[in-house]
Amino acid sequence: MSGGGEAAAIGAGQQPGDEAAAEQQQQQQADGEQKITPWDVTGGADGKVDYNKIVSDFGVSLLQQELVDRIERLTGRPAHPFLKRGIFFAHRDLGEVLDAYERGQPFYLYTGRGPSSEALHLGHLVPIMFTAWLQRAFNAPLVIQLTDDEKTLWRGLDQDEARRLARENAKDIIACGFDIGRTFIFSDFEYVGGPFYRHIVAIQRCVTMNQVRGIFGLTPEDNIGKIAFPAVQAAPSFPGCFPHIFGDRKDVKCLIPCAIDQDPYFRMTRDVAPRIGYDKPALIESRFFPALQGESGKMSASDANSAIFVNDTPKQIKDKINKHAFSGGGATLEEHRARGANLDVDVPWKYLNFFMEDDDKLAHIGREYGAGRMLTGEIKGELIRLLTDIVARHQAARAQVTDEVVDAFMAVRPMHEALATAGRRRA
Amino acid sequence: MSGGGEAAAIGAGQQPGDEAAAEQQQQQQADGEQKITPWDVTGGADGKVDYNKIVSDFGVSLLQQELVDRIERLTGRPAHPFLKRGIFFAHRDLGEVLDAYERGQPFYLYTGRGPSSEALHLGHLVPIMFTAWLQRAFNAPLVIQLTDDEKTLWRGLDQDEARRLARENAKDIIACGFDIGRTFIFSDFEYVGGPFYRHIVAIQRCVTMNQVRGIFGLTPEDNIGKIAFPAVQAAPSFPGCFPHIFGDRKDVKCLIPCAIDQDPYFRMTRDVAPRIGYDKPALIESRFFPALQGESGKMSASDANSAIFVNDTPKQIKDKINKHAFSGGGATLEEHRARGANLDVDVPWKYLNFFMEDDDKLAHIGREYGAGRMLTGEIKGELIRLLTDIVARHQAARAQVTDEVVDAFMAVRPMHEALATAGRRRA
Repeated sequence: MSGGGEAAAIGAGQQPGDEAAAEQQQQQQADGEQKITPWDVTGGADGKVDYNKIVSDFGVSLLQQELVDRIERLTGRPAHPFLKRGIFFAHRDLGEVLDAYERGQPFYLYTGRGPSSEALHLGHLVPIMFTAWLQRAFNAPLVIQLTDDEKTLWRGLDQDEARRLARENAKDIIACGFDIGRTFIFSDFEYVGGPFYRHIVAIQRCVTMNQVRGIFGLTPEDNIGKIAFPAVQAAPSFPGCFPHIFGDRKDVKCLIPCAIDQDPYFRMTRDVAPRIGYDKPALIESRFFPALQGESGKMSASDANSAIFVNDTPKQIKDKINKHAFSGGGATLEEHRARGANLDVDVPWKYLNFFMEDDDKLAHIGREYGAGRMLTGEIKGELIRLLTDIVARHQAARAQVTDEVVDAFMAVRPMHEALATAGRRRA
Repeated sequence: MSGGGEAAAIGAGQQPGDEAAAEQQQQQQADGEQKITPWDVTGGADGKVDYNKIVSDFGVSLLQQELVDRIERLTGRPAHPFLKRGIFFAHRDLGEVLDAYERGQPFYLYTGRGPSSEALHLGHLVPIMFTAWLQRAFNAPLVIQLTDDEKTLWRGLDQDEARRLARENAKDIIACGFDIGRTFIFSDFEYVGGPFYRHIVAIQRCVTMNQVRGIFGLTPEDNIGKIAFPAVQAAPSFPGCFPHIFGDRKDVKCLIPCAIDQDPYFRMTRDVAPRIGYDKPALIESRFFPALQGESGKMSASDANSAIFVNDTPKQIKDKINKHAFSGGGATLEEHRARGANLDVDVPWKYLNFFMEDDDKLAHIGREYGAGRMLTGEIKGELIRLLTDIVARHQAARAQVTDEVVDAFMAVRPMHEALATAGRRRA
């Protein structure tokens, strides 16, 4: 997977140095045409992403409160803030997965990460943290794909470097708290082969070049690895790729938590599924995590100041937020006191919505800041304290993740117990 | 690999039931346009393959007598009949491989087979028998690729059936006499992964959809597996795909014996080679083995009467040759005695040129039959005796090839000794 929840402004999907693509993108942005692919996220004329348009263009369903309530009921847990606050806002067939779960049938989770940078940023953590929560809540087996092959095909990363980054990223992922008995993390360069390769080929047989052109915008100038790759990301949606977890069961449903930009992959996958004898995978899809500069900030893959990374120091976090986080506050103190902050564009407010767990405190900040009683410096201070704490805890957890732990998560080992004990209804 | 030496008339490259493609092909034949791809071999207006045109279109070199002499000198063996008689007639960089061998540097052989039928026919045996001879003559390590994945992508074979046919075909291949200490046979479905997959991706990154359209005639209507596949056939040209044989050596040259219809794959491979840090593979390429009905015979993949198979009975061999082998003899006995046989179109004569080892006897038959002193029934009788004997010996050898033997040839096992003892100059 590539996007993994980052917004256009963070630009993780861009190919550095690909001037032509960048120009085309700027042109599209100038035209006001929104463009959402797994590699490009460009907002409309105002730079903002129109999520209603995505829902209608992609044909996904909005995640209604009723489904959130149902998840709480089935798991006996309060919904994750990402659910309560509409950060995971869309889905495909989530109801069917919950139906199966309610009948006592297991399902498994599948998410991924395109390892293109040394450390993850907060946007990358969104689907990872949410997946960890889903795993705990549903006691579900989980597969996490690290698409190191993709990163060599799109970005020209050296293969050894891509494989190294995959392991480094795996450490950040493991630090988010996954159950080692139920979690299989794999790199494509290591795991493609055998049943996985056979599923890839079966999928490739069902998809034409014209289709990947239509779905992903791939062109005849693209290399054939890119053209073939969608099948590599599609395959883990099918339990037959993981006999060490699922044996020969083909009836285990798959739920994929991801950012909405990954939807094209799984639209394709869902078309193919019945043709190769599988259920369509279900999806639960998030909004994009905005860059510090805001949704309409200039894209810059290499601009460290556009995001908070999990290996940032407290000083870096403080400086980035103070200097770069786009504020919706008034231009002057007088104006701010008089008219309040514009929460729709305020990045500290958006970040707090992602990461502040305390609903009451969040609501209080929103009221005070929106009314102009709380100042920009104050909300930034709240955010700095929150993120410094989250990042410190992440770094402490990551320090515990040795190479041996990574090896253990990535080992192809019998995991049938994960399936046997999954899908049980909570008391 | 797909073609593996069969002529258009045998039609091994055709997709059964693909009416549109067949029509297109007939149209091209009617237009008199010669078409040579790994999946289609169509002669010109007269149905014949114009080899001079192939040489010029493909840009290969004719295999001159001087190189044949050099092979004899270097190996201390008389040249194989396929070499003496121009059946292997073209090459790329063969001289460079011989240079390396002469300097005491090892090279390895790579050939393959697309497992689409239960048993091989004589056309399939041509590159296999020749490769076995090259291995003995040069003491060379050898990899043999069974492209079971290809057969599911092009022909819609069930994957399990393709894997089964790969093993069955492996038995026929092994029966041709390979050195188990120097030969690694692999099926793509079993062996894709690890270093092999990494090489596939590295190659895919260097080749665009436009290029595979130009080289192979693939179109946007083709499935993405077909579009990606050329890299799978290209990869074994590079020793890095086989660390269990070559360790981490990148400097071992590769020589590929194959039918000329496979040349497009390796033209592409040679373009990519320097970009991924390898020598270009060398090639030694054969003519097509004609169908019983002759070069211009109607294509029919499912017509058992178009070829002699290695599992045919003596009666089947006799009946096929007597009833179906196209004769260049006179229409009447009088005409035959007066004008002799037309050896240019006579299938029994062509088959004898492939498989009769005795040069003097072959020359005698050519003189007598060409002059009309030998009759069609007589030359067919010679061919029946010869092929019945070859097929009987093949069947006896194949009966010795147990599943354990297949497993042994296909095992990924340390084979560094094969490299260490290769490339030594004969006494």
